[in-house]
Amino acid sequence: MSRTIHDLRTPALIVEASVLEHNIRTMADALPGARLRPHVKAHKCTALAARQAAAGHRSFTCATIREMEGMARAGLGEDLLLANEVLDARRLGELDARVTVAVDSEPTIEAAAAGGVREVLIDVNVGLPRCGCPPEEAGRLAGVARSEGLEVRGVMGYEGHVVGLPDRATRAAMTEDSMLLLLKAHQEVGGEIISAGGTGTYDLNTWATEIQAGSYALMDTAYAELDLPFRQALSVLATVISASSAHAVADCGLKALGMDHGNPAIEGGHQVWFVSDEHVTFGPAQPVRVGDRIRVLPAHIDPTVAYHEEMHVVEGEEVLEAWPVDLRGW
Amino acid sequence: MSRTIHDLRTPALIVEASVLEHNIRTMADALPGARLRPHVKAHKCTALAARQAAAGHRSFTCATIREMEGMARAGLGEDLLLANEVLDARRLGELDARVTVAVDSEPTIEAAAAGGVREVLIDVNVGLPRCGCPPEEAGRLAGVARSEGLEVRGVMGYEGHVVGLPDRATRAAMTEDSMLLLLKAHQEVGGEIISAGGTGTYDLNTWATEIQAGSYALMDTAYAELDLPFRQALSVLATVISASSAHAVADCGLKALGMDHGNPAIEGGHQVWFVSDEHVTFGPAQPVRVGDRIRVLPAHIDPTVAYHEEMHVVEGEEVLEAWPVDLRGW
Repeated sequence: MSRTIHDLRTPALIVEASVLEHNIRTMADALPGARLRPHVKAHKCTALAARQAAAGHRSFTCATIREMEGMARAGLGEDLLLANEVLDARRLGELDARVTVAVDSEPTIEAAAAGGVREVLIDVNVGLPRCGCPPEEAGRLAGVARSEGLEVRGVMGYEGHVVGLPDRATRAAMTEDSMLLLLKAHQEVGGEIISAGGTGTYDLNTWATEIQAGSYALMDTAYAELDLPFRQALSVLATVISASSAHAVADCGLKALGMDHGNPAIEGGHQVWFVSDEHVTFGPAQPVRVGDRIRVLPAHIDPTVAYHEEMHVVEGEEVLEAWPVDLRGW
Repeated sequence: MSRTIHDLRTPALIVEASVLEHNIRTMADALPGARLRPHVKAHKCTALAARQAAAGHRSFTCATIREMEGMARAGLGEDLLLANEVLDARRLGELDARVTVAVDSEPTIEAAAAGGVREVLIDVNVGLPRCGCPPEEAGRLAGVARSEGLEVRGVMGYEGHVVGLPDRATRAAMTEDSMLLLLKAHQEVGGEIISAGGTGTYDLNTWATEIQAGSYALMDTAYAELDLPFRQALSVLATVISASSAHAVADCGLKALGMDHGNPAIEGGHQVWFVSDEHVTFGPAQPVRVGDRIRVLPAHIDPTVAYHEEMHVVEGEEVLEAWPVDLRGW
């Protein structure tokens, strides 16, 4: 009854089991236990999160309420952080889990309190123009939160403008700049937690008490450009459906790939020409035939996974398991 | 019990009912009945397809087997064309529908015959380097298909390299070039159908017997750049979750938007700075407050819709209906 990748309908997400295992173990060695708060937004899969928990990480980071709900339902709710601002927190207050939510303004603090959430982190802008209060407002907001009866566990501040920079020295210097802002805010806020970081700064950010990395488990071609010890575990299996003398076409298109980081790559050195809704057109490095299967390597993991219903764990050509991508949606 | 857009969880796809109606009626006036074979890949929604059927179009175009299955199940299978090559056609042969599939090679012809499909179109490359045989091979392939017992209904050839060109005269001239190739192939192939075209060439392509337009119903900012009579019906409703003096952030990110055509726009003149997994950061044209709702206009409709579970049909702020995006996946 063993299935192979040739039995899969394409396009299909496939995860190389040994590479995933390598990535999880490498990270758990570098940041054991609670030093890592794995971010589930990159994989949106509770089965994969369970592997991270088995490696010692019992606290998790989420980006959406749906992710929080799914993690709680999967029994992975020991310490869940929603590292994002929400205005209707009632769905969070109802969860059978320890829930902490990021806040960066009075309305988000009021929403947390009104929704029955008990614990918060003050989200601080450390250089990425996204959510997060100015560092100098963090202490005041912590006071507002405490006056609303909320437990303030500390601060978070994501150096998202730094994690993808190719030069390691620049990445290190800018991480320090960001974290000095966060430490200053933390002095005013108090609490045990200083939460920050990502896959690109997991070993450079020595100021945070916990790192929110997520992409390290599956990786993508953008992070593969950096000097990281993690390898690409995920690809999209596709079937060649048309081939001419100059180009070939496989059934992996815009609805199977996050495209904000640009075109994917293809294993075997095939050159991607362009991607359409349901197709990738490429120049073959060596001749391909209609019916051949290829592996397409996404440029950005998070919005790629979010298109798929499941990921297939494989060892070479053998399919070991199918894991639902059960944290999709909002 | 009437719901408003303020009751919706965000991000949420919303469709302005009157604009959708305008677009469907405008197209049905220009290309009545079988002159249009609406492409469902742009909206992936059988409820919307039913509106197109009510406007007189009973034959449809699909891009995936899942779309074919869903349309058949929804009772919209009077004449379904899978305008794409497939190698496992068994799921098509089982459908309770009239099924025609595109073929461009011996293996795809054999797959159609083996899968129990009875009718095909010869797919011809008319200038877009994607699927489609060279025009000079079309006649030979039609012979192969007939020798396999398949009914060859005619040809298709998509001028996808032309549909988005901004200058109308260039678009017209290049459509003619493409269609002369398709007509030449049709002379060798025979059959009643010459299927081609898209939203950008719906009124310029006077050679095809039927036009495969899909985007016209919902539209996007890329097609809005052209001189078309269709208006943007679809947007992504988002909530402002953070606001500073310089920028604001709403909860509509890379997992709610197809990004291959670049950044979305935002109604009200707000300037998009960048998009992250779950966020759009923008410079407000006028002050916004946390909790405000904004409408984000996608640059490319097809990969945007494919991220969402449902679309909400609205009239201004009132929510009239929720339509499942039931043709997602493969």
